[in-house]
Amino acid sequence: MHFLDQALQLEPVPGAGDGRWTGTASAAYWNMVGPFGGATAATVLQSVLRHPALLGEPIALTVNFAAALGSGAFTVDARPVRTNRSTQHWTVEMTQADADGAPQTLTTATVVTAARRETWSVNDTPMPDAAPPEATEPRTMDNRLAWLQRYDMRPLRGNVPATWDGQQNDDPADVASLSRLWVRDAPPRPVDFPALAAMSDVFYPRAWLRRRKLVPAGTVSFTVYFHADSAQLGATGEGFLLGQARAQAFRNGFFDQSAQLWNQAGVLLATSHQIVYYKE
Amino acid sequence: MHFLDQALQLEPVPGAGDGRWTGTASAAYWNMVGPFGGATAATVLQSVLRHPALLGEPIALTVNFAAALGSGAFTVDARPVRTNRSTQHWTVEMTQADADGAPQTLTTATVVTAARRETWSVNDTPMPDAAPPEATEPRTMDNRLAWLQRYDMRPLRGNVPATWDGQQNDDPADVASLSRLWVRDAPPRPVDFPALAAMSDVFYPRAWLRRRKLVPAGTVSFTVYFHADSAQLGATGEGFLLGQARAQAFRNGFFDQSAQLWNQAGVLLATSHQIVYYKE
Repeated sequence: MHFLDQALQLEPVPGAGDGRWTGTASAAYWNMVGPFGGATAATVLQSVLRHPALLGEPIALTVNFAAALGSGAFTVDARPVRTNRSTQHWTVEMTQADADGAPQTLTTATVVTAARRETWSVNDTPMPDAAPPEATEPRTMDNRLAWLQRYDMRPLRGNVPATWDGQQNDDPADVASLSRLWVRDAPPRPVDFPALAAMSDVFYPRAWLRRRKLVPAGTVSFTVYFHADSAQLGATGEGFLLGQARAQAFRNGFFDQSAQLWNQAGVLLATSHQIVYYKE
Repeated sequence: MHFLDQALQLEPVPGAGDGRWTGTASAAYWNMVGPFGGATAATVLQSVLRHPALLGEPIALTVNFAAALGSGAFTVDARPVRTNRSTQHWTVEMTQADADGAPQTLTTATVVTAARRETWSVNDTPMPDAAPPEATEPRTMDNRLAWLQRYDMRPLRGNVPATWDGQQNDDPADVASLSRLWVRDAPPRPVDFPALAAMSDVFYPRAWLRRRKLVPAGTVSFTVYFHADSAQLGATGEGFLLGQARAQAFRNGFFDQSAQLWNQAGVLLATSHQIVYYKE
């Protein structure tokens, strides 16, 4: 079984009704103090996708990270609070027992799913020109963190700084906080909605790039909009995605990141946004 | 009392504990089938800002629109689900009684607030060059919808099409879905967090601009990141904000809009994102 499928394993809680699940924090996606946030977002989404009352496919996912997920068991509750003719609104809460066994909220989250219909469509954000993934070197940074080994990342620009010299990158003719890379699961795995949600969060904190300084940073709120439906994901398969991310503002402890993911055919699969805490 | 302050009036529900409020749907901000979504988002935020347990100032707001708010009374419940040392996580639900008196969910929402500290800061998205608001003509579109009268909007580019000829705007050298305008409350009112949340939603559906076609469209999920703190809002006062919005993708019933709002001094006060349902 693929690492991601292992991480997404959820067991229904007997007698708790539909939508209450338990799972285990994934060691395979471990970051500094808990699993990589993208894996947590994927788990939140999975709790909705496995609910028997599900209508349609994901349109929007917002996850707010209230506390780090620790090792061991967690509980996730997915509740459909309103079902319309073609859209469905969900709230999701992930909790974990503290030392006294009392449940502590780790994330609040909302999901919108919808039955999509074919309409006039257009991609207003063409994929940037890029050398193909086969001609792009894998990243060479220290990959000791487990989650970094779960992705084949091939930076095109804005790789993690080789030196932390505190020299601000502020060329006014350039987007100083922009990273661009090819990315796919390692080992390869056909992309689905949870994988796409997780991959929307592979971009390291923009403050590190902008400042060439390793300041403490952590995502506070993360939103993904799914532009692809399952047919487009099926056509993408195990292929690389081209991803890019940039910041818009760094201000008094918080900065934002906006990101896009295209498949190799140039279809914009997802856009995402997050606001990130940073220190100093 | 200003129209916005009237719209934001919330009364505590006696005996229901902190955070449960009633209000009345604002006729002054009426759109087609209910109040303008920005006014609803501002109300959600207000329910948190008036809570006695509030920590800090807003960082992130996500509102999912599950059903239209009808005329008359509504209830809003703001619940602090986790309070950390410097951040606080909220869930908010707005409901309205149906014909049988049963509460129906209108919105799900999450808010993050935080005690900000002064840190290294930089604006990575300079305000675009623009003629000053005094030299820019107010919009001349049909303002019969009440909420349009609540804003002084002065388009710089991407105004509502004068003709609905269905001719797609698709100049590849241009961002075809981009609108830019000066905006402030009408009459002027010092900007605060609820006003900023509402103003992040003044941009009409990008599908109308892109297609020059009036298709049915409605926001499904809306997120605002607050880069400004109350001191920066205080310095902004009643001044105009420069706003811009664009889409990234239109696909099978849903498109996204990303927006920025700067004050006249060039400070990026807020960025926002939404995903919008459209027909045809």
